[in-house]
Amino acid sequence: MSSPTQHKIHVGVLGATGTVGQRFIQLLDNHPYFHLAALGASESSAGKSYKDAVRRRWKMTTPIPADVAALPVTLCAPEHFASCRVIFSGLDSSVAGDVERAFFTAGFAVFSNARNYRMDPDVPLIVPTVNPDHFDIIPHQRSARSLGRGFIVTNANCSTTGLVVPLKALQDAFGPIDSMFVHTLQAISGAGYPGIASLDICDNVVPYISGEEDKLEIEPCKILGSLSPAKSDHVFTTTRISATCNRVNVVDGHLENVSLSFVNRPPPSLDAIARALSAYTCEATQLGVPSAPLHPIEVTDEEDRPQPRLDRERGKGMTVTVGRIRKDPVLDVRFSLLSHNTILGAAGSSLMNAEIAFKKGLLA
Amino acid sequence: MSSPTQHKIHVGVLGATGTVGQRFIQLLDNHPYFHLAALGASESSAGKSYKDAVRRRWKMTTPIPADVAALPVTLCAPEHFASCRVIFSGLDSSVAGDVERAFFTAGFAVFSNARNYRMDPDVPLIVPTVNPDHFDIIPHQRSARSLGRGFIVTNANCSTTGLVVPLKALQDAFGPIDSMFVHTLQAISGAGYPGIASLDICDNVVPYISGEEDKLEIEPCKILGSLSPAKSDHVFTTTRISATCNRVNVVDGHLENVSLSFVNRPPPSLDAIARALSAYTCEATQLGVPSAPLHPIEVTDEEDRPQPRLDRERGKGMTVTVGRIRKDPVLDVRFSLLSHNTILGAAGSSLMNAEIAFKKGLLA
Amino acid sequence: MSSPTQHKIHVGVLGATGTVGQRFIQLLDNHPYFHLAALGASESSAGKSYKDAVRRRWKMTTPIPADVAALPVTLCAPEHFASCRVIFSGLDSSVAGDVERAFFTAGFAVFSNARNYRMDPDVPLIVPTVNPDHFDIIPHQRSARSLGRGFIVTNANCSTTGLVVPLKALQDAFGPIDSMFVHTLQAISGAGYPGIASLDICDNVVPYISGEEDKLEIEPCKILGSLSPAKSDHVFTTTRISATCNRVNVVDGHLENVSLSFVNRPPPSLDAIARALSAYTCEATQLGVPSAPLHPIEVTDEEDRPQPRLDRERGKGMTVTVGRIRKDPVLDVRFSLLSHNTILGAAGSSLMNAEIAFKKGLLA
Amino acid sequence: MSSPTQHKIHVGVLGATGTVGQRFIQLLDNHPYFHLAALGASESSAGKSYKDAVRRRWKMTTPIPADVAALPVTLCAPEHFASCRVIFSGLDSSVAGDVERAFFTAGFAVFSNARNYRMDPDVPLIVPTVNPDHFDIIPHQRSARSLGRGFIVTNANCSTTGLVVPLKALQDAFGPIDSMFVHTLQAISGAGYPGIASLDICDNVVPYISGEEDKLEIEPCKILGSLSPAKSDHVFTTTRISATCNRVNVVDGHLENVSLSFVNRPPPSLDAIARALSAYTCEATQLGVPSAPLHPIEVTDEEDRPQPRLDRERGKGMTVTVGRIRKDPVLDVRFSLLSHNTILGAAGSSLMNAEIAFKKGLLA
Repeated sequence: MSSPTQHKIHVGVLGATGTVGQRFIQLLDNHPYFHLAALGASESSAGKSYKDAVRRRWKMTTPIPADVAALPVTLCAPEHFASCRVIFSGLDSSVAGDVERAFFTAGFAVFSNARNYRMDPDVPLIVPTVNPDHFDIIPHQRSARSLGRGFIVTNANCSTTGLVVPLKALQDAFGPIDSMFVHTLQAISGAGYPGIASLDICDNVVPYISGEEDKLEIEPCKILGSLSPAKSDHVFTTTRISATCNRVNVVDGHLENVSLSFVNRPPPSLDAIARALSAYTCEATQLGVPSAPLHPIEVTDEEDRPQPRLDRERGKGMTVTVGRIRKDPVLDVRFSLLSHNTILGAAGSSLMNAEIAFKKGLLA
Repeated sequence: MSSPTQHKIHVGVLGATGTVGQRFIQLLDNHPYFHLAALGASESSAGKSYKDAVRRRWKMTTPIPADVAALPVTLCAPEHFASCRVIFSGLDSSVAGDVERAFFTAGFAVFSNARNYRMDPDVPLIVPTVNPDHFDIIPHQRSARSLGRGFIVTNANCSTTGLVVPLKALQDAFGPIDSMFVHTLQAISGAGYPGIASLDICDNVVPYISGEEDKLEIEPCKILGSLSPAKSDHVFTTTRISATCNRVNVVDGHLENVSLSFVNRPPPSLDAIARALSAYTCEATQLGVPSAPLHPIEVTDEEDRPQPRLDRERGKGMTVTVGRIRKDPVLDVRFSLLSHNTILGAAGSSLMNAEIAFKKGLLA
Repeated sequence: MSSPTQHKIHVGVLGATGTVGQRFIQLLDNHPYFHLAALGASESSAGKSYKDAVRRRWKMTTPIPADVAALPVTLCAPEHFASCRVIFSGLDSSVAGDVERAFFTAGFAVFSNARNYRMDPDVPLIVPTVNPDHFDIIPHQRSARSLGRGFIVTNANCSTTGLVVPLKALQDAFGPIDSMFVHTLQAISGAGYPGIASLDICDNVVPYISGEEDKLEIEPCKILGSLSPAKSDHVFTTTRISATCNRVNVVDGHLENVSLSFVNRPPPSLDAIARALSAYTCEATQLGVPSAPLHPIEVTDEEDRPQPRLDRERGKGMTVTVGRIRKDPVLDVRFSLLSHNTILGAAGSSLMNAEIAFKKGLLA
Repeated sequence: MSSPTQHKIHVGVLGATGTVGQRFIQLLDNHPYFHLAALGASESSAGKSYKDAVRRRWKMTTPIPADVAALPVTLCAPEHFASCRVIFSGLDSSVAGDVERAFFTAGFAVFSNARNYRMDPDVPLIVPTVNPDHFDIIPHQRSARSLGRGFIVTNANCSTTGLVVPLKALQDAFGPIDSMFVHTLQAISGAGYPGIASLDICDNVVPYISGEEDKLEIEPCKILGSLSPAKSDHVFTTTRISATCNRVNVVDGHLENVSLSFVNRPPPSLDAIARALSAYTCEATQLGVPSAPLHPIEVTDEEDRPQPRLDRERGKGMTVTVGRIRKDPVLDVRFSLLSHNTILGAAGSSLMNAEIAFKKGLLA
């Protein structure tokens, strides 16, 4: 049994009627640490019960939790979230900048999916199974921005998130990565709802996702980098990344094909690489937070895997599956990886980040 | 008006009930040079009319031409094709080796889609809008194999075919290509019928196509290479190619994302590359053969194109569409290309090769 | 060769950037009677060239005709269409009422896809291969509305259109239909662009299309009915129709499964039904208008046909394919039919209606 | 916690490498009553470990349970299943007849998905949430066939299964059904693996499933009927059923659109129908067997539901969702229903039937 509601930390969700917001609501159902107490959305939803506000736009495959269905939806302003300590933001980047600032300056712990603050020097960009040590910049952030108890932590773009998990394992084992090509085949759910028009993707693929390649070429360098000795800045890795992004007719699950070379010569053997990936563990798992997967990475030796439909649910959507590890004729090694873009790649990362923050005492 | 049937060259199709065979039949309907006179298939079909043999497996979107429906299907043996000068082979590679040899040693001009003879030193591997000059090896082939009037010409794997057209344009304009990454998103029709099970591709992609990456890493080096001075051998290019192949839920049309670097420094500008691709013309077009496209390559500046469903029919399936030309952070340039895998990428290449052979006097 | 442009009737397209408008533009390219001279769209497009106005929303599989790409787009007001005699309307029903009235009262011959005027007693609802005799109500319409040379003709909802073609053949041969069930599996293109969200239809079907069942239960009764003796009103048939509409993941082509009973007893044999369907011909074909199919209906005896992908292009999208004719355990007979929903089912019907009107002298 | 393995009933699965067999293995993982002890498949698999036998054909979205992966696969003969009391058969009907007979005559309790014995007068055809009272014919079956402890119970065709659950609720509440139309949109998983070729269903629907309409027109009359007073025969209902079956591009979940009329006049109101469906409960739920859903039927009032992707997992795939209840213009009422075709519609029904048999003491 989970602990009684009254002892849990109260949390709110911003952008509650969108697809990221819906996933937050699904993942927070019966959460052992957190109790969902407030929902924020746009003016057209405010004042309605959640059920009436979301109606035909609810696209999860589980029903709206009964207690959430009746919750009132408010505007996304701090005064409506007075009972909450933590704010999960699934806001669109067009509004996230101002709204999230209002919350973290008002003393809330904000965990955001939006891109607005990701590249700020004092804002950590955390993939929970990769770099929770970047939480160490929060004291500096609070002091630099005079935030009191408030802070903001961002998680990465969905395609970045799946990618950096095996990269972290390889970097830990074999040192820095010199150059990399990553080609993505991304699911339609990554574009939200209504998102991609069916006429654009039925019997089709689209070799373009606005802004995605830019994010994929820079975010990994921050995530895989380190904090400065004073814990007041980020030191990026210098990997050169060439990213090409495609949208394919898949509901959930981003597949990424990666080729890379290491700085250190000679490069590791394929066996050593497979072992390093399989052996990878992470602080989230060691802390035993509820959303942490038993294995951050699973390696498959089936020659036609990973596949989105068959592998996306591994580790309840928190595990990255890696397969097809083989020599690259130009660089050192190539492989394919699969991650669940709306769990690990979005709301799930925010939630696990908050769980880690709780364990680290940041939500006191 | 097309010329009367009696003056046309009689041709036969091997593997007539398969998907490549069906496409041959569709493309040969009312052809100005060729008259389809004989059909070969396996034992289970032999002795039936084509309509009865193919029945529910006919998957073209046009009906079986009325005269072909009534044609008898025979076994794939030369004695049943006595009236034919040209043989189009859509045979599976498991049987193509022996059967095709029987035909070209019996004096037929064989145009084959199978992979069996592609890498033989005296067999040209011809993409009709790229390297019809490789027909010059036929005299050597005939003499080396004592073939008389017979010969065999192969066309390339479908994913190779679309790729080499822009590569040829770039190589002609800017010299040899040093290194290349190519990632494919390939249509289900490339696997034939029944081919890919729907459970494997609905809401899914498969990051693996058996044998495909090997072909894509070597065939371009033969096609883009030259004949030896004595026209008795092939000189391959030395481009290093890293190919990754994916199957996606698209009926027709292979999309390929390419990154490459040139040997010559500095590399050409993006503008120069776009101009060279747009300006590319080919001998097939100059000869004016019926299947030649007006433009072997069309360049699009729409940022989300090419797309399979929208662009695969360009030039009646014989034009390659190139888009998203942009700098590559690791190599020199990257772009996306789209080709029709069962027209230019299979039966259409064979047919255009035969048209070129006719113009070159090789079918006399 | 088509006749020179200056002798053709000048036509305009309203709603030119939408999917119906795009299909009009595609079908009007090189039309022997009509020259596309003016394009109307909403305020956001007006003032731009068509190419700039439509940009990434052009979703036809053929390119924008070069002369149309440069045409200026205007607002949908009669003063901008002064050179035109005929107006094709692909307007959304939310605006079609007022705009179309402005045009037909200003003396234009309006051919509309919108539903707004379909059920008006003096407005004919014409499926061109079914009831062009309903043009006879135009004199009454002009007089009742004091229209001068103007008039309006509507064509039916896409799912109605495919259905009434075989029903007309059966009614002509065997008398009135008593009761009918029709279940549709409708293509996504029927909802326009962006239309159906991909998340709603990938790995899914939607058993609901807003307003569609109502149309399908009443429009056939008008189309299959007759004009009053004075040609001043419509006499509906009294068939009871139960319609259920589903959206499926198909680009183009509506499949409909029909069960029906005749008033006359005993009902015809299955053979007689197949013969009546195959033998059906129509005035449009007899008049020889350019868009008329050679066969308004094709009957297939393949047990798993018709199928959208394989059969939608029959008769250039103007033929309805009927298959699976068999006894019904409750009513008399059941069968499946397939029609192209954006050609015969939308812009193609409007165009063929205009061609018939031309032949009937109504465009003088 | 589940009870220790040694106290569970040992069961075997026939056809273990097929899709129904795989689902059995998934559903039996950690089952509280049953321990999976033996696996049977064809000659090509026999002698291998299950993991090696099934390899790339494992298509469940969860991994092979670790203990099952190592189990040896044997031929489907009783001597290899000596430790088992219960046999679950996922065999193809081409072999199920002889193999299943061998097992039930050898004293095993056989629960079969195959169609071979479904219509035998002494074999019950049981949908577990509908007619478990038909188990009462087992004593007669045993005596008539001299079976000792053995018996065979079949479950219905997948499209029948979803249909009869709401029909049972309506029949219980309002008396017999006179006439019915049912139109199905069936998922590809219903055809097994490899099953439907992707070229047949991408951008397509197929209005035909071999033998399916016949089953759907007769099986409900047995399931919804009663046993004779002597419990030695089945009395069928006399409902006239017209079934039309379509295959659509959906992974799992059969959607069925139903129109029906009752014998009793006047028919019930729509409200009364909705209440009767919502209120329906069943013996399996009352017995509290592990697979029984809390609600055999859920009624939705969202106008565009049920939908396969969103509703198929209700009640862990054992609940039927009903929506769009509305008047029918020809019969009395129409509605849409959705069921999971490979859980409730196949292996799940077999399993729940076995659970009920256990509770009824038939597995002693």
